[in-house]
Amino acid sequence: MSRRQFLQRTAASGAAALATGAALAQTAAPAVTSGPQIRWRMTSSFPKSLDALFGAGELIARRVAAATGGRFEIRTFAPGELVPALQVVDAVQNDTVEMGYTAGYYYVGKDPSFAFDTALPFGLNTRQMNAWMMHGGGDKLMGDFFRQYNIKAIPAGNTGAQMGGWYRKEFNTVADLKGLKFRIAGFAGQVLSRLGAVPQQIPASDIYPSLEKGTIDAAEWVGPYDDEKLGLAKVAKYYYYPAFWEGNAQLSLYINMKQWESLPSEYQNVLEMACAEALVWSTARYDALNPPALKRLLANGAVLRPFPRVVMEAAYKEAQALYAETAAKNEGFHKIYESWNKFRLDEVQWFRVAENSYDNFMASIK
Amino acid sequence: MSRRQFLQRTAASGAAALATGAALAQTAAPAVTSGPQIRWRMTSSFPKSLDALFGAGELIARRVAAATGGRFEIRTFAPGELVPALQVVDAVQNDTVEMGYTAGYYYVGKDPSFAFDTALPFGLNTRQMNAWMMHGGGDKLMGDFFRQYNIKAIPAGNTGAQMGGWYRKEFNTVADLKGLKFRIAGFAGQVLSRLGAVPQQIPASDIYPSLEKGTIDAAEWVGPYDDEKLGLAKVAKYYYYPAFWEGNAQLSLYINMKQWESLPSEYQNVLEMACAEALVWSTARYDALNPPALKRLLANGAVLRPFPRVVMEAAYKEAQALYAETAAKNEGFHKIYESWNKFRLDEVQWFRVAENSYDNFMASIK
Repeated sequence: MSRRQFLQRTAASGAAALATGAALAQTAAPAVTSGPQIRWRMTSSFPKSLDALFGAGELIARRVAAATGGRFEIRTFAPGELVPALQVVDAVQNDTVEMGYTAGYYYVGKDPSFAFDTALPFGLNTRQMNAWMMHGGGDKLMGDFFRQYNIKAIPAGNTGAQMGGWYRKEFNTVADLKGLKFRIAGFAGQVLSRLGAVPQQIPASDIYPSLEKGTIDAAEWVGPYDDEKLGLAKVAKYYYYPAFWEGNAQLSLYINMKQWESLPSEYQNVLEMACAEALVWSTARYDALNPPALKRLLANGAVLRPFPRVVMEAAYKEAQALYAETAAKNEGFHKIYESWNKFRLDEVQWFRVAENSYDNFMASIK
Repeated sequence: MSRRQFLQRTAASGAAALATGAALAQTAAPAVTSGPQIRWRMTSSFPKSLDALFGAGELIARRVAAATGGRFEIRTFAPGELVPALQVVDAVQNDTVEMGYTAGYYYVGKDPSFAFDTALPFGLNTRQMNAWMMHGGGDKLMGDFFRQYNIKAIPAGNTGAQMGGWYRKEFNTVADLKGLKFRIAGFAGQVLSRLGAVPQQIPASDIYPSLEKGTIDAAEWVGPYDDEKLGLAKVAKYYYYPAFWEGNAQLSLYINMKQWESLPSEYQNVLEMACAEALVWSTARYDALNPPALKRLLANGAVLRPFPRVVMEAAYKEAQALYAETAAKNEGFHKIYESWNKFRLDEVQWFRVAENSYDNFMASIK
């Protein structure tokens, strides 16, 4: 909508407001037309073709404009247009761009605590993550962490539990992982490395050619809807589940802290709400679009396989050891981990009662 | 925050905005201070003590005020202050109040299709409901339905899968349900009635006295956090799970359509975002607060019991028969049911792959 179209629309709705009388318009003022004009740029770690992830950023931009009468404008940019895919933290921290849509766990090389903003192996599921962030103390802990990077981080997306990725060959034991060159992001790579795999961090756009050329043997991305677009089934047909390293994967909007603090409080409130909407919208989008995508993938030759339990158990054990080692070396990680892990244990106990028993009944009934 | 405090704050943030330079303030206008002043009332079906449900309405009111510089004010009211708990649809339809926070399935006496706005027995889980509403066609179908009632309905809360309620006695078979006077809302009562129970629709505040006096034998409300507040464990100690009639329970904000259409589009956008935030916030709140509440209930003598599978299977069969009968009599229900049921079947197939396998592994590992 152009500014002119917008003004026409608000003038029309202003007139409608006056017509209804009673509850409205104690002052007969027109709709919102004042407030500072702001133009920001949002870089993304995700290509435009991934419409749930790049699209969540676009939704935020659309809503913010619509709620402020076009006064707070955000333009969205794909990786490489302004900033490379995996350099969003630096770009936001240095105010190269005002904001970026990304996944914290891409930056565990800077500090392992970034992983808590996305996912850790055998961690929270999607609803548990929202609960920890909104009502379990996660918001405060992560806010303190991000302040060190001059960043205001707002949760703004979640993929749900992911798939375990595409493999050229089937496997059954931990020994079968030995030497496996595997595209996998963040902390999870370290767990798989302890089991003999060779993790690689590669942005979405480079996964297909790497698999095709044989530079890697396997790759995980998100789930059926996105994986289908990346074409991964064509180069590696075994599709394992679940991604034990991503029981959820939260995406966040990172905002330069000085820029954030400079916003009028109305704009801050609008932006926070837009992110909350993007959070639930993106999960809903994956949940709606994954089922038909999985059907198409299977119809075209993909072969579904559950992760062997022995592999998951070995990975679980290595993950716990890795967390203990990391916590011993990094006080910040230790502090967040204690809150997160206690919360996780309580949640698992509760979810098995109402949620899981309901889902399992629904999965079992004909 | 008073209007004066608000003006002071926005003046301060306006000054901060100017100080940062580049990205900001192409016009040096102050923060938002124009736009029509609107005062609306929101009635609720839920008492103030239920802070996730009544609280979701309060959150919406707070955010709307903060995002519009206090120009769009919403005052929240408990049941009985303006409108009785279970008469929100009439009150909004007739413009007695501009908006009400309630659960659609309280109104299945008017039309069974109201149930699709909350939950049907053996229906969608929480994420599946969000997916159907946001990306699966539910929004359009329900919008068409609510237009007949002069209502704009916006999803604005979800409890997650609920507990199956509190019973004075244990039970093991369908025959044990015969004559059971059971407080249960909406469509679910009809399913249980077909199994011999005697359903009763009673607002939250009357459940405890009814159980205490023995007017009813059992009652379901939501889950540990709310049930603990209502004190149900003191009068009926067996706590069954899951509520097979509420794999999710969506709450919605109902807005008089003429009032909705009279709003400036900025306010409409703000209100829609506030509802989306309340949707994810309320589920997160239950997910965070149910685990410790369940521990306390069990420590104080509540006895946890899974619903016998024979009872759930019999109820599932009756539910399918009831849906077929209702669809045969009601074309509107039939149309929504077809979309909803196809979506449900696809979702169940997909959720068992990544989500359920992840959750079940986490529940099983020590």
